[in-house]
Amino acid sequence: MPESVPSTLGGSRFLDALHGTNQTGRPPIWMMRQAGRYLPEYRAIRDEAERKHNGFLTMIQTPELATEVTLQPLRRFGMDAAILFSDILVTASALGCPVRFVEKQGPVFDTPIRSPEALAALRPASEAVADLDYVMAAIRMLKGVLTVPLIGFAGAPFTVASYMIEGQSSSTLSRIKRMQYEQPAVLHGLLSQLTEVTIAYLKQQVDAGVDALQLFDTWTNHLSVYDAQQLCFPYIQTIITAMKAYTSIPIIVFCKNTGVLWPDVLATGPTAISLDWGCDAATMRACIPDTIAVQGNIDPFLLYANPPVIEKRVKTLLNDLGDLPNYIVNLGHGIMPDIPVSHVQTVVDTVKAWGS
Amino acid sequence: MPESVPSTLGGSRFLDALHGTNQTGRPPIWMMRQAGRYLPEYRAIRDEAERKHNGFLTMIQTPELATEVTLQPLRRFGMDAAILFSDILVTASALGCPVRFVEKQGPVFDTPIRSPEALAALRPASEAVADLDYVMAAIRMLKGVLTVPLIGFAGAPFTVASYMIEGQSSSTLSRIKRMQYEQPAVLHGLLSQLTEVTIAYLKQQVDAGVDALQLFDTWTNHLSVYDAQQLCFPYIQTIITAMKAYTSIPIIVFCKNTGVLWPDVLATGPTAISLDWGCDAATMRACIPDTIAVQGNIDPFLLYANPPVIEKRVKTLLNDLGDLPNYIVNLGHGIMPDIPVSHVQTVVDTVKAWGS
Repeated sequence: MPESVPSTLGGSRFLDALHGTNQTGRPPIWMMRQAGRYLPEYRAIRDEAERKHNGFLTMIQTPELATEVTLQPLRRFGMDAAILFSDILVTASALGCPVRFVEKQGPVFDTPIRSPEALAALRPASEAVADLDYVMAAIRMLKGVLTVPLIGFAGAPFTVASYMIEGQSSSTLSRIKRMQYEQPAVLHGLLSQLTEVTIAYLKQQVDAGVDALQLFDTWTNHLSVYDAQQLCFPYIQTIITAMKAYTSIPIIVFCKNTGVLWPDVLATGPTAISLDWGCDAATMRACIPDTIAVQGNIDPFLLYANPPVIEKRVKTLLNDLGDLPNYIVNLGHGIMPDIPVSHVQTVVDTVKAWGS
Repeated sequence: MPESVPSTLGGSRFLDALHGTNQTGRPPIWMMRQAGRYLPEYRAIRDEAERKHNGFLTMIQTPELATEVTLQPLRRFGMDAAILFSDILVTASALGCPVRFVEKQGPVFDTPIRSPEALAALRPASEAVADLDYVMAAIRMLKGVLTVPLIGFAGAPFTVASYMIEGQSSSTLSRIKRMQYEQPAVLHGLLSQLTEVTIAYLKQQVDAGVDALQLFDTWTNHLSVYDAQQLCFPYIQTIITAMKAYTSIPIIVFCKNTGVLWPDVLATGPTAISLDWGCDAATMRACIPDTIAVQGNIDPFLLYANPPVIEKRVKTLLNDLGDLPNYIVNLGHGIMPDIPVSHVQTVVDTVKAWGS
């Protein structure tokens, strides 16, 4: 086990909130997908990359571009944390199941995993992770310039497996749900292999210098509680247990349907729970033990409203939770690509002005 | 106000459960979308209708076909209730915003409602409902032959408006969400007009003889609690209040994200709450007052499992809730079109064998 990377970010309100000790007068703020298409400076880089080949993948795989794009929202808004610009599906590609990103359609796997043979043909996790060196290069580059904490992340096994099995976005996830009955060994084999590569990948991110980690299990809202307990939480728990044995850096878990699933999320042992926007944050904060930080959960679609409406609703949230030492302002999911930049600014300004 | 239609269904365990007085030794069972494409006899009628013109609409609009299709699952499975074969979007069409049903894509509105002019061009609710006589003809036909209760239904205003505004299925409902900020008068005008036509439509269904009503607000899971309180529940409450003043027949409300939204559903005043499959039915039954019946919430995707697995999971649900006087077995959403008929039979057999 390597020595843990010393933090150069003493006094960061983001890390303080994760540890339940934020006394800075306002909660920290960052936003999921804060580096994204709503920013003109992002679109400029993406358009340039697109003119060459497969823009999104090029951006992810080129440390200089990933670094630049990660920094863009920090320059504009002064967010309290950076999140590495990457994608949850890089672990799938590293295992030998390549993903393409198709405009207006999203990720596409041309060779989805639907048989024991397809599963057996995947690379072992130990080999796969070597493919992700470009991520570590971006992390090291970012750590050289950042003055706020850097969040590393990975997709949780269920959500990544959903894409690998469905082959693309699906409104029902019928294939992975059928597979749990028709080919349980293939499904759980894939979830186990993803768990293994995710642990190796997150350890490398820690070694490269990230200050916190977030696991994204976006599609848990498709599942019954029972199925989520079979397909999601055991694998998340394995990852968190392994990471806790390796490092003391905080781990945030984001699932959809948190309003119902939070006791199971809690049982996986995270530092913080990130709430989707379908539940009320104040109600949830009252349920979840004080030892666990809470992140969220502004409705991403509220950002379509005009600034006075945004300000009013964000203030309500701040009045409920803003003075807690263990609360982090965020959205309940990523920023939509057609949100006006000035509306994101309004959220940030409202949080920064609050309590001052 | 007309005299209420006398029930010829004394002793129906479905109606008894709605009233909290089922003492028959097992809960009643019916399934959302029990008349549907998973049945070969349904596909035969649909294929025939498709060869002529616009199969699904023809089936809905032809009382003989709607009656036949409504009866099919009763003949096969002996369900404890029939649900009228129709669609939640007929109210939109009646208002003058026609819907087409496109294979593998779903409903499509070629002239979506996105402006004050489009809203103003809709027919008044009082005129619109006359267009739905074909539904009343099907109800009267069904009442002549049915020996179990007939459930009438309508889409709740928010979900119907979502389709009318988006123009088709959407994974984000971005347009209706934007409209609440950019054109609130158009959105709330449309919701009000849908509320009015829905009340008139449900009253006619009651006059024609239905024994219970269900409101479907399928897309509530896209909303924050706050938005659901603005866009969904006031309109549902208006409908329920109007219907309670008109008739004593029971009203069931189905929303997605019920695990979080149930207090708001409860406050609208329904007879029963129908749970989606994302929450645990026993947990929910313990939260919801005994005076309100609970319906649900078998995972529709469990029906992909093999029969012993289905039987085991249904038995767990029955052991939790089966002996309550106010519980109705159902799925948490409609039957998927590729579910084997024998798996639906397994659910029914398990419920009917339970407690005997």
